[in-house]
Order: sequence, then structure tokens, then C-alpha cells
Amino acid sequence: MRARDLVEEYPIAQLDDDALTAVSAMAQQRRPGLVVMGEAGAAPLVLPGSQVLRFLVPGYVQDDPSLARVFDEQDASEACLNRLVGCTVRELLPAPEKRAETAVVPGSATVLECAALMARLRSPLLVVEDGDTILGVVTTSRLLDRLLSGPAA
Amino acid sequence: MRARDLVEEYPIAQLDDDALTAVSAMAQQRRPGLVVMGEAGAAPLVLPGSQVLRFLVPGYVQDDPSLARVFDEQDASEACLNRLVGCTVRELLPAPEKRAETAVVPGSATVLECAALMARLRSPLLVVEDGDTILGVVTTSRLLDRLLSGPAA
Repeated sequence: MRARDLVEEYPIAQLDDDALTAVSAMAQQRRPGLVVMGEAGAAPLVLPGSQVLRFLVPGYVQDDPSLARVFDEQDASEACLNRLVGCTVRELLPAPEKRAETAVVPGSATVLECAALMARLRSPLLVVEDGDTILGVVTTSRLLDRLLSGPAA
Repeated sequence: MRARDLVEEYPIAQLDDDALTAVSAMAQQRRPGLVVMGEAGAAPLVLPGSQVLRFLVPGYVQDDPSLARVFDEQDASEACLNRLVGCTVRELLPAPEKRAETAVVPGSATVLECAALMARLRSPLLVVEDGDTILGVVTTSRLLDRLLSGPAA
């Protein structure tokens, strides 16, 4: 059993896609994050949902959480929507120098390789690639399920 | 709209529950993490799936990821199962001194307060409490869906 045997289909956003559309779809489909196709020649990127939130929450609220209490719901929604309107997915990504190791494994990765990388990156999913082809993603729960179903399964 | 209006039901593990049973259920139900009732008087804890994986992956593999490649699947499953067998949920938790801010909000928390805390903790869910009563959890995708449905919704 290798990463390629554990993949699930997953929507892949393009860098130039509309950010609001991509994030709304992710939220409505209750997915744990966005998978974004990288620049030509670069690896795809995984943006966990909490990182998307980080983009949406205005910086002054992140700096001073007590400000979050004074926003009424209308203001909060407007502030968050305003961060996304007119943006592309590219703008959601952390700056290149802040991008850590990418959450990507080859199809041949063992279950334990996937688990170790996912644990290290604290990522809810990994992208599985064969060469330049994205095969799908492996989620934490699928991987756990596989690891715990026992050696004989 | 407050945290209490966004809650979903979620299984709550007890500290003395069998760890293998709790983690297996979480994986089979494709949930993003474990919610664990705290010690008497202490807040509940959220253990994201990736943190559960961190417990399962043997320390020497986390220290040297190249070792993950040499484990065949049977060995990997056995190594991970062995970490859980006979353990309670309590043993999955990080040491108290390593526990960061807890992913818990009162029912009265605003949508933006939830978003700011979730982003800061990189947590896929928050526990919503009223006094000592757990009302349920708010997930990242539910919160995003709410924030993006717009002020008029």
C-alpha cells in the first residue's frame, strides 16, 4: 500500500482562479483546505482551512483579538469578504519565503512517509503526484484509518 | 450569529477512554480531530488529526524521515498500533507545559472571534462551551461558509 493507493479526488484551484469562488466552494463542500496548482515547474500547495482564515481575518484583529468582539456580524462578514473580492487564489498564498516544505509526496511514498510528513507539517492533507501529474490527495483520517486497520488488513 | 448558533454535534472523548478505540472512531468517521474532556475544572482539549499522527509515528522516524521509507506496510502498521494499544486518550495529549492556548470559546463568541482564534491556533475546530457545558464544535469550513455567505444572509 502506497500513497497512490490511498488517494481521493479533490478539487484543484488554479493560481488565477477567483479567490472568493474557490474558498466558498471549499467551505460549502466542507473540505479541510485548498489545493492549489503551483507555478509551472513548482509543486502544488496545500492551504489548510485555518490558513485561509488567517488571510480573511483583518490583521489588526489578529494583532489584538479583543477587537474581534466589537465587530458585529455584518461588519465581520464585510471585512472578510472585502479581503477576498477581486483577489485571485495566488494572493491567498503565503509569501514564497514563508512557504515551508510542501505537502506533496510521490505516489510511491509509504504510509509511514505520508504520516511523518503530515505530522511534521501539521497538514490535514497531502497532495500525491506521479511526476507532474496530480493523482489526488491523502487525508489525515484516511491515513489513520489505514494505519489502524492493522497489518493483516 | 454567535458561536452557539454555529455548533455541530461532535463526539467527546474522555481522558480514560481507550486511545485505539477513540482514534479509530475519529478516522472511520473522517473527523478532523479528537475533542477530549479536560480534567475536572480544566477546559476541553482539541487534538487535530495531524497531532494524533505525531503521537503514532515512532520518534526515530520523525527525527529521520528517511527511515519511513524502509518500513514495509506491516511494520508501519504494527509500529503505530503498538503506540496505541493499552493507552488511554490521556496519553495522546501533549505534556501540560506544551499545551498552547486551548481551542475553546464561549457560546457568546462572535464569528470573528472564532475565526481569529482558529487562525491563530491553526486548529480545524473549536469547542463551544456555555459555562461548563460543551455545546458542540465549530469547524473551519462551517465558519468560512458563514463568513462568506455575506452580511445580508
